[in-house]
Amino acid sequence: MSKVAIVMGSTSDLPVMQEAVEILQDFKIEVMVDIVSAHRTPEKLFEFGKNAHKEGISVIIAGAGGAAHLPGMLASLSPLPVIGVPVKSRNSIDGWDSVLSILQMPGGVPVATVALDGAKNAGILAAQILGSTNPDLQTRISEYKEQLKEKVIKGSEEVRKQGNS
Amino acid sequence: MSKVAIVMGSTSDLPVMQEAVEILQDFKIEVMVDIVSAHRTPEKLFEFGKNAHKEGISVIIAGAGGAAHLPGMLASLSPLPVIGVPVKSRNSIDGWDSVLSILQMPGGVPVATVALDGAKNAGILAAQILGSTNPDLQTRISEYKEQLKEKVIKGSEEVRKQGNS
Amino acid sequence: MSKVAIVMGSTSDLPVMQEAVEILQDFKIEVMVDIVSAHRTPEKLFEFGKNAHKEGISVIIAGAGGAAHLPGMLASLSPLPVIGVPVKSRNSIDGWDSVLSILQMPGGVPVATVALDGAKNAGILAAQILGSTNPDLQTRISEYKEQLKEKVIKGSEEVRKQGNS
Amino acid sequence: MSKVAIVMGSTSDLPVMQEAVEILQDFKIEVMVDIVSAHRTPEKLFEFGKNAHKEGISVIIAGAGGAAHLPGMLASLSPLPVIGVPVKSRNSIDGWDSVLSILQMPGGVPVATVALDGAKNAGILAAQILGSTNPDLQTRISEYKEQLKEKVIKGSEEVRKQGNS
Amino acid sequence: MSKVAIVMGSTSDLPVMQEAVEILQDFKIEVMVDIVSAHRTPEKLFEFGKNAHKEGISVIIAGAGGAAHLPGMLASLSPLPVIGVPVKSRNSIDGWDSVLSILQMPGGVPVATVALDGAKNAGILAAQILGSTNPDLQTRISEYKEQLKEKVIKGSEEVRKQGNS
Amino acid sequence: MSKVAIVMGSTSDLPVMQEAVEILQDFKIEVMVDIVSAHRTPEKLFEFGKNAHKEGISVIIAGAGGAAHLPGMLASLSPLPVIGVPVKSRNSIDGWDSVLSILQMPGGVPVATVALDGAKNAGILAAQILGSTNPDLQTRISEYKEQLKEKVIKGSEEVRKQGNS
Amino acid sequence: MSKVAIVMGSTSDLPVMQEAVEILQDFKIEVMVDIVSAHRTPEKLFEFGKNAHKEGISVIIAGAGGAAHLPGMLASLSPLPVIGVPVKSRNSIDGWDSVLSILQMPGGVPVATVALDGAKNAGILAAQILGSTNPDLQTRISEYKEQLKEKVIKGSEEVRKQGNS
Amino acid sequence: MSKVAIVMGSTSDLPVMQEAVEILQDFKIEVMVDIVSAHRTPEKLFEFGKNAHKEGISVIIAGAGGAAHLPGMLASLSPLPVIGVPVKSRNSIDGWDSVLSILQMPGGVPVATVALDGAKNAGILAAQILGSTNPDLQTRISEYKEQLKEKVIKGSEEVRKQGNS
Repeated sequence: MSKVAIVMGSTSDLPVMQEAVEILQDFKIEVMVDIVSAHRTPEKLFEFGKNAHKEGISVIIAGAGGAAHLPGMLASLSPLPVIGVPVKSRNSIDGWDSVLSILQMPGGVPVATVALDGAKNAGILAAQILGSTNPDLQTRISEYKEQLKEKVIKGSEEVRKQGNS
Repeated sequence: MSKVAIVMGSTSDLPVMQEAVEILQDFKIEVMVDIVSAHRTPEKLFEFGKNAHKEGISVIIAGAGGAAHLPGMLASLSPLPVIGVPVKSRNSIDGWDSVLSILQMPGGVPVATVALDGAKNAGILAAQILGSTNPDLQTRISEYKEQLKEKVIKGSEEVRKQGNS
Repeated sequence: MSKVAIVMGSTSDLPVMQEAVEILQDFKIEVMVDIVSAHRTPEKLFEFGKNAHKEGISVIIAGAGGAAHLPGMLASLSPLPVIGVPVKSRNSIDGWDSVLSILQMPGGVPVATVALDGAKNAGILAAQILGSTNPDLQTRISEYKEQLKEKVIKGSEEVRKQGNS
Repeated sequence: MSKVAIVMGSTSDLPVMQEAVEILQDFKIEVMVDIVSAHRTPEKLFEFGKNAHKEGISVIIAGAGGAAHLPGMLASLSPLPVIGVPVKSRNSIDGWDSVLSILQMPGGVPVATVALDGAKNAGILAAQILGSTNPDLQTRISEYKEQLKEKVIKGSEEVRKQGNS
Repeated sequence: MSKVAIVMGSTSDLPVMQEAVEILQDFKIEVMVDIVSAHRTPEKLFEFGKNAHKEGISVIIAGAGGAAHLPGMLASLSPLPVIGVPVKSRNSIDGWDSVLSILQMPGGVPVATVALDGAKNAGILAAQILGSTNPDLQTRISEYKEQLKEKVIKGSEEVRKQGNS
Repeated sequence: MSKVAIVMGSTSDLPVMQEAVEILQDFKIEVMVDIVSAHRTPEKLFEFGKNAHKEGISVIIAGAGGAAHLPGMLASLSPLPVIGVPVKSRNSIDGWDSVLSILQMPGGVPVATVALDGAKNAGILAAQILGSTNPDLQTRISEYKEQLKEKVIKGSEEVRKQGNS
Repeated sequence: MSKVAIVMGSTSDLPVMQEAVEILQDFKIEVMVDIVSAHRTPEKLFEFGKNAHKEGISVIIAGAGGAAHLPGMLASLSPLPVIGVPVKSRNSIDGWDSVLSILQMPGGVPVATVALDGAKNAGILAAQILGSTNPDLQTRISEYKEQLKEKVIKGSEEVRKQGNS
Repeated sequence: MSKVAIVMGSTSDLPVMQEAVEILQDFKIEVMVDIVSAHRTPEKLFEFGKNAHKEGISVIIAGAGGAAHLPGMLASLSPLPVIGVPVKSRNSIDGWDSVLSILQMPGGVPVATVALDGAKNAGILAAQILGSTNPDLQTRISEYKEQLKEKVIKGSEEVRKQGNS
């Protein structure tokens, strides 16, 4: 089955990006994780971007913060769908730089951007992408959504007991 | 083959969203286009969101402006990947409301957000999503990227003649 | 007498929203409290929004954070006045996303938005709405305002002793 | 029946605020319109704020731009619900000052804020407020929402013909 | 000699505003300090604004946070110069609401705005205003500026020893 | 009598700053107008800032746009009160740079900042500063405020005829 | 003598970037101009970035808009100083994305960022960089600054005639 | 060899600016460090700006926060390249004021701005500037970049072991 690559600009992004790894493992989707820095390892960026689709990878998730060029440069180099995770890194101005430098790509080179620090959603989106042509996986996604619902319903019962007594 | 749905909150979004229609037609991908207003036709929103994946649709593109709830609500209702296009509509505060109300989805319910008024990129992203498990389409995407490159190279020759004479 | 519904997207919003419950109880107005997540329990959202006005509810207070669609979707579904409380949730970008995705509703579907984390004011506004056609309640609101004034006057006396000695 | 007061800081706000007048007249709700400047006619502000509820007014709509103090000061003076319309006036910084100086009221003194230049929604909200205890008016609001829906449905048919041919 | 009034919207603003009191006392300028809430004690606001110039006050310093209407309303009511201090209060969105709702006054009604939490500068500005027609006080201000300079020069010597060794 | 200096960074600021000249002439206050560029004529800046108070000037009004250093540098050099006018110049990012680089002065060196492009208010503030120790001028300011009020009252009559017919 | 490379992401950036060309030609500094798109011609980006310093280029000026990755990627690839010009391109959100995605580079990989659309200043900065070890060029820069001063002085004389008559 | 001056507005900026000192010492480049406050020691600013290039200094690094005028004023006074470091000082509004008042310089007077608190990058940029005409230093910069790469590669190996097991 298809594989999802999860790359990030720095090891300091790992605590955020780990959520993407976990949710994909929950969906039984194979992942490979790596550090690829657009600004410090440009050759690796180039090689990875050029070849990912030839190595069994179907979707790329890329997380970065500040002037975050990793997702956009991978989108430039690869024909695969690239999901960008803006990370609120230590050097970011409240996350605005991370968001804008990933989201505002020019015509021709999209990055599928998720919320600030939204690595979990990046993982779910990758699953949905693979699921769009895989009925089994699509069913697992529908089941996941059911679980979300049930958790809320349970929380709701607690609240109604408290709040309305 | 898979179909892409392109929906938007208002007919006034059509000039922006038309770019998604055209690029997908260029890629020979079937599209269906409709107006679905989260705030004025909530029943249609529900029905469409609940059933899209059962009617041959593989990816949803949703455009909206201001307090833009259409993409997020479709992501809530459907197991399909949803691409959100923030539209800089007449009532938007410079596009910030459109961007933030589409991008900043809570954990569990991703929207693949593209740039402000980035409908063309939404179309390309939809093609990449379908292409992630379709080698033919992936090749067409690689060819499209080659064309982008050639256009820049040509422009570059013009500039070098002018700028360096 | 009329009832006020206080709903929120997540149990994590409860500490903020509790202030609305308390001030309405101070005004002797009946409340019902529940969790309704636009993104995780869309069916419940739909049912609640469609039926609230048939079940003795006169005003809806809805709190949510990030891409906050709950207040606007309820305003879409219900003929009742909906008060939106932007919550500065964990995943919010300093509250801007919560504020803009609640405030910037399109023409035809208003949400009465209060300040960021302003649940207490949402409660008072609900009381004022009910009071606009209920002289007794309006008098209680005027008395409440008198109490605010007296508290400031007392604080003022303290400050004048200190500051001007 | 109850009356709605529509006041604004300057005659230059009238083109925006006129939409509130018209929608309320469509709902057959009596309105009174006036210019009340917090900064240039503070005495009139005081008198109006103190007495509005004694003169048959049930809801106040107040529009202002820039450092917009009119809605908040009326909320300070009156027990009535006050709806604030942030106006993107000539001297405003893209509307941010208008929005924040109306929305961010302190605990105890709410203003029901609508979208930037959202006077039409202010009118609808006023109708909803009066309708919350008036079944006839509530029905008219539900009918209005039906009309919004029908207009979208019609627009949708046009788009589907074009977009899908 | 002339007196400076230092007023603020809430006792919670006192820790910030205290700096204005102290610097003015250092300049041997008489101050009076009080709490005047635009939103909770509008009558006191009115009376204070209307009469301050008749009671020996020459300059008003007003501090407030969030939707901060106190400085602007005093400028509306008084012929005196009003200095506004935007306070980053608990309910403020990073201070932007405080700044914009004090700074962006309409034509005809200025507020002399200082930096966020800049109460010390408000005090110095009040001294400069009184000093503009008082040579003795102007000399004291020049001396104060000399002290600032000397403190920097001393700090500079420390740094040069460290940094250049 | 005291004189007000009105300086600006560039001749392109003159259309905005002219409003300060005119309102001060209406108040019969003597003005001197000049171009002083912090970035292009730093020597002139220094000489002017160091000597203004020795040449009969009592208040300085300084307008500039973008990275606007003129008001703050004059406040650094002069013991006089300095009023800063943030100008929305051609190179400004919507005026935010102009506002922040004038307003956010460090402790010890205040600039009395007015609204974006608020030169008229700068002139009125200068008059209020001079009026704080000049009863005649203070009376003229009170009269000016009366005129503002009358203009609003007249506009109000027009609106009431239209809006309420 | 040393050469300055002026590259930009798109021919649509040329009208802005032309100012850098012209000012450098005024300083008699050799320039080469080219289009290098990070997102559409990544191979060219790589080759240019890797080799510029070997081909007689001493400083790189790079202009781009939106999610602007060109300056940062060149800084990643080259040991030369890279000057970044944020361009307010058609797809930019008021320039904020251009500014932040160029300015906020991570530790280790600086971009010397100038003002939005500040291509002229980029050219002057390149001249200053070359001039820092070239006394002749440094003198020409000092002369250029003298010319700026004289132009302001002349403008000042005009204004003083008008404004003070 | 050439010397780099590192100046800052206040001793409180030293912890941030120290990173520039250290990286330059790593590159064996001579530095001089000093406090120069635009607002508290304007004469020192003037003297330093006018004479730096005569005293063996080739590049100026200037750090400041809030309304940060030091870098721009030095750029006004000196023919040398000036690198500005926006410092997120205690009185800054999330760093926006520091960034904009350094970056947005008018035409003719550039400041080479680096990221918020980006003193390390300022040091590297100074080294690149000196290296642009010094092959030895340019080689050391290339070596530094190699080290950055190696550190990332090592981190990458760790992550791959963890993430992919």
